Amino acid sequence: MNKREHLTDTIQHIDIKSFDARPIIDAYRSMAFQARNLATATDIYNRMLNDKNCSVILTLAGSLFSAGLKNVVVDMIENNMVDAIVSTGAIIVDQDFFEALGFKHYIGTPFEDDNKLRDLMIDRIYDTYIDEEELRVCDMTVAEIANNLEPRPYSSREFIFEMGRYLDGKGIKTEKSVVYSAYQKGVPIFVPAFSDCSAGFGLIHHQWHNKEKYLSIDSARDFLELTRIKIECAETGILMIGGGVPKNFTQDVVVATEVLDADRPMHKYAVQLTVADERDGALSGSTLKEASSWGKVDTTYEQMVFGEATVTMPLLVSDAYHRGYWKARKAANFQKLFQK
Amino acid sequence: MNKREHLTDTIQHIDIKSFDARPIIDAYRSMAFQARNLATATDIYNRMLNDKNCSVILTLAGSLFSAGLKNVVVDMIENNMVDAIVSTGAIIVDQDFFEALGFKHYIGTPFEDDNKLRDLMIDRIYDTYIDEEELRVCDMTVAEIANNLEPRPYSSREFIFEMGRYLDGKGIKTEKSVVYSAYQKGVPIFVPAFSDCSAGFGLIHHQWHNKEKYLSIDSARDFLELTRIKIECAETGILMIGGGVPKNFTQDVVVATEVLDADRPMHKYAVQLTVADERDGALSGSTLKEASSWGKVDTTYEQMVFGEATVTMPLLVSDAYHRGYWKARKAANFQKLFQK
Amino acid sequence: MNKREHLTDTIQHIDIKSFDARPIIDAYRSMAFQARNLATATDIYNRMLNDKNCSVILTLAGSLFSAGLKNVVVDMIENNMVDAIVSTGAIIVDQDFFEALGFKHYIGTPFEDDNKLRDLMIDRIYDTYIDEEELRVCDMTVAEIANNLEPRPYSSREFIFEMGRYLDGKGIKTEKSVVYSAYQKGVPIFVPAFSDCSAGFGLIHHQWHNKEKYLSIDSARDFLELTRIKIECAETGILMIGGGVPKNFTQDVVVATEVLDADRPMHKYAVQLTVADERDGALSGSTLKEASSWGKVDTTYEQMVFGEATVTMPLLVSDAYHRGYWKARKAANFQKLFQK
Amino acid sequence: MNKREHLTDTIQHIDIKSFDARPIIDAYRSMAFQARNLATATDIYNRMLNDKNCSVILTLAGSLFSAGLKNVVVDMIENNMVDAIVSTGAIIVDQDFFEALGFKHYIGTPFEDDNKLRDLMIDRIYDTYIDEEELRVCDMTVAEIANNLEPRPYSSREFIFEMGRYLDGKGIKTEKSVVYSAYQKGVPIFVPAFSDCSAGFGLIHHQWHNKEKYLSIDSARDFLELTRIKIECAETGILMIGGGVPKNFTQDVVVATEVLDADRPMHKYAVQLTVADERDGALSGSTLKEASSWGKVDTTYEQMVFGEATVTMPLLVSDAYHRGYWKARKAANFQKLFQK
Repeated sequence: MNKREHLTDTIQHIDIKSFDARPIIDAYRSMAFQARNLATATDIYNRMLNDKNCSVILTLAGSLFSAGLKNVVVDMIENNMVDAIVSTGAIIVDQDFFEALGFKHYIGTPFEDDNKLRDLMIDRIYDTYIDEEELRVCDMTVAEIANNLEPRPYSSREFIFEMGRYLDGKGIKTEKSVVYSAYQKGVPIFVPAFSDCSAGFGLIHHQWHNKEKYLSIDSARDFLELTRIKIECAETGILMIGGGVPKNFTQDVVVATEVLDADRPMHKYAVQLTVADERDGALSGSTLKEASSWGKVDTTYEQMVFGEATVTMPLLVSDAYHRGYWKARKAANFQKLFQK
Repeated sequence: MNKREHLTDTIQHIDIKSFDARPIIDAYRSMAFQARNLATATDIYNRMLNDKNCSVILTLAGSLFSAGLKNVVVDMIENNMVDAIVSTGAIIVDQDFFEALGFKHYIGTPFEDDNKLRDLMIDRIYDTYIDEEELRVCDMTVAEIANNLEPRPYSSREFIFEMGRYLDGKGIKTEKSVVYSAYQKGVPIFVPAFSDCSAGFGLIHHQWHNKEKYLSIDSARDFLELTRIKIECAETGILMIGGGVPKNFTQDVVVATEVLDADRPMHKYAVQLTVADERDGALSGSTLKEASSWGKVDTTYEQMVFGEATVTMPLLVSDAYHRGYWKARKAANFQKLFQK
Repeated sequence: MNKREHLTDTIQHIDIKSFDARPIIDAYRSMAFQARNLATATDIYNRMLNDKNCSVILTLAGSLFSAGLKNVVVDMIENNMVDAIVSTGAIIVDQDFFEALGFKHYIGTPFEDDNKLRDLMIDRIYDTYIDEEELRVCDMTVAEIANNLEPRPYSSREFIFEMGRYLDGKGIKTEKSVVYSAYQKGVPIFVPAFSDCSAGFGLIHHQWHNKEKYLSIDSARDFLELTRIKIECAETGILMIGGGVPKNFTQDVVVATEVLDADRPMHKYAVQLTVADERDGALSGSTLKEASSWGKVDTTYEQMVFGEATVTMPLLVSDAYHRGYWKARKAANFQKLFQK
Repeated sequence: MNKREHLTDTIQHIDIKSFDARPIIDAYRSMAFQARNLATATDIYNRMLNDKNCSVILTLAGSLFSAGLKNVVVDMIENNMVDAIVSTGAIIVDQDFFEALGFKHYIGTPFEDDNKLRDLMIDRIYDTYIDEEELRVCDMTVAEIANNLEPRPYSSREFIFEMGRYLDGKGIKTEKSVVYSAYQKGVPIFVPAFSDCSAGFGLIHHQWHNKEKYLSIDSARDFLELTRIKIECAETGILMIGGGVPKNFTQDVVVATEVLDADRPMHKYAVQLTVADERDGALSGSTLKEASSWGKVDTTYEQMVFGEATVTMPLLVSDAYHRGYWKARKAANFQKLFQK
């Protein structure tokens, strides 16, 4: 097969409005194991949305958008179901911004010969394919954005806002985009390891070719900005899809408010959907009860769900969408905090 | 809390007819990872049901019925969506037959002190509670059935049929029962490790108190009987929930037909829902491709789904129920093969 | 490659006497996570061996002997480090007895095409190959043994003893064999799902060709016999490699003594090496604390270790071998309990 | 128990020189599953050390040093077994630098009440305890270092070098320190998400209290610097403990050399020790074969090992230490690349 024959069927993003998961979640609630855990997690997310004093932070890790979950998050943004996002770089840049530039993800298979794919410049994510030449365009678009900005330190939040502005100017070449919707709705997106993705390629290209004057990404400022949001809103609920840096970073802001002598309460609600195991002691699978020992997460409303996110996240968000507590919420527009 | 205060909220069995999972499965089909795998698995199960020459064998392992999946299997039996069942003992005896005697499973928590539960004679399955005194009644009912049968070797299939007959005489004290529905529809149930459950307690009580003349459970005959079904029906599809002995036993019958010089084709369709990992080399997580090297499973239509069954199985079966291929199927009544 | 070219490098069984794991276990003891858990588990196993009143039951599940762990168990038997064994059938028949007949397991790869292996009649276990034609000889040897025995119900323990007798007559064609060593040392081996392996093929061949008079395998008697051992020895420690039926069956005997009005204490010591997860609620990954709620395992000395057994079991047993508490133990010879 | 009673037994770091793992690895090599994988991984690491043209990059993720693996890495640095390190922040700052300041990690239990621990200001990592008040000192020491540096963008590598200089000035208050040894040996340490740890607390304290002029952490520069190392050394081998950002970041530098039109070959050798699963499609568990489709890792010498690092890493490094190929290696001193 030649390259194009491998890249025929595109990943389609699930539309959580097109089906109503409420009867399923209602049934799961009186079962056991992960069905019941998923129902409990969904109930906690609904509780966050229904709590007038609570801001919702979504954390994202794993190849979620290449897998078809992008529009779930777009719907959350557009319906005031999330107030801030903390993510890995790949999701935001290589997957969302990439699609906004008009590129696609393709249905592949984990059983293909990877050396052959490399020769074709097809990158594989488990069972999904990406055209590496298109990814290079994405990298260079980031470089182009950097080249056109004032050379000074930026938080990732600030840079991603500029990516949204870029899309606003050029027009998005796909139906929906998280970067674009977040730009429009004032939902800040933080990527604490911003150079660890396609953006990194663009940024080193920028720095390499502008050795005298270049912009930089200040990861400390990311942390300070997210802490300012926590200081601002006080009560928070966190919906974590996967673990990694976004999970840790977001939990840490509670402690950060103390460090700034502006103590705010622990995250009042916390949900994590993950397949990570707690038994290697790593953060990704660590329990939310453990996070409580650190003073980060309250244990009253917390639930881990052991399940892969493409299956579980659409059920959780579809239930919340149809349950409708978001209708009484307003856009927090935390982006405004950072604009003069 | 006293014992009764721990045993208040009962597990409710999910009704896959009460919601329609088709739009969800349809959306999962163009996503990635386990959502797509679950859609593929569901499509294969639908293919089994739509293949006029194919008999469907369901294998069950894990604490599935105590978790609320009992009625899913009852609906499969009553709507000709399954022709034979191979299971662990706990599911059939400690959970299904137990509920048919009028007992319940209770919503519990994994965070309770197990020594305290032991003092209260409450048995815990992860987040579910059972009254151990009620389990003893179940054990003794098996002993009573054994005491009233002719003392000779029985297959587990034969003994479970007698348990169905017992329920038919006494009346089931719960809404639905797999043992009872299978008895009525002629769906044979095999439990290859039959003494490894509540039945074992009843049977050793029987043998201990009837030292001269007692019945025995011939596990070789189980294997011979399931092989006879494979010889009879030739084309088979297997839907495996969990792994363990039921998975291995059912895959093995293909080879068994060769051993009897009555060669039949590999299982034409195969699906497994499991969280087991392949990397320890054990059978439960071994891939269906690996099973193909053994000549047991054809690789054309096979799919593993990594996900916990309380979440995934209801979606798969609800889709198949509403897709409706079962309407054109007839009851195989394989039980008749073993009756003169 | 032709068949022989795939079957060149044989699996070699690790010799836990050839290295001393004590300094490693000593270092693991003051670390964290699974290193510390493995040290704790090893300490508990040493405690079992050092407890004069304690009998040790070893449970085996997973493809352990094809992976090179056979001689670990032989050394345990020959040095009085285990008093009874409960296993899956594949380990005892397809792997140990198979090698005793002079056949081998071969180093393979999980990345080979399984359809190609099937054409060559090579069976794959993850990264290990078996010659299927040799497995057929193993099946038929079981049939031959069955044909030469009195046609009546046998426990698996009794039949495996006859397999040991067969090897004693013919001579083993490999360096070491668990079936043979256990036969000689009077260590009973139970396989609760005895027809779920190569033995099943041999036994249905026997029953199919001897329709009037054939032997059967009484799985209830297995349970009764293991319970008799528990009644006899009272204090027990269990070392579980993997989960499955052997884990459940062995834990259940405590309750079985109550059912026979011969109450014996819970298993005093319990260790499990496994990669199974507790979050699907299945028995294989269920915690030993959970088993305590059932009255099966005491919680004072129990430890789960999350790790694959080829890595962890040799370290644990090597430590115990060199620590040397077995030197003061005598052979329990529980086989004698069942001989007149 | 009061706070001090919980914090009595300290974690001891394993000394891989004190035992010789070679006979174990030699035995594992002819077994199956993860034992064989660990032997293959060890052989590949030895091959890296024995390849005169190959530089070795170590990536670290998970709570490795709090678990007792710190001195393993110190020994690697001091014996020229590693040339650059990419890590999560917690390992380098909260765990290594923290101990260098004289603080300890304590043996705890996963079964303690986390609300109680929070009240005592004890932070839990699975089965390990930390005194949160001591962690605050660590945070503030980072702030102090930042306060004393010229206010401009720094790479994490540069800042961690300053942490080494700080320790050099004050003297380390523990036996060994990775930050300190790396400072002395010129081994650069990169932390791509540097604000996602104790350093983040120190840095936001610094920025908050120095609003006019403050230093920042330029994560793009981290990526550029690691890419410069790859450009410099051409042939590389990567030893990955855990996954996360360090795994992705380090694999990405191959592509980064192309982006800078300075193409260098794929990582020639690659090993990963992890318990992450590939089936959720996330990077941590993604296979090294998949990385090959991206042009990052050559498939000739690559091995994933499924096992928790406290058990597997000491065996791998002890074998390599005693195998002795490091004796012919020189310190690469990549730190010099970044100093004028």
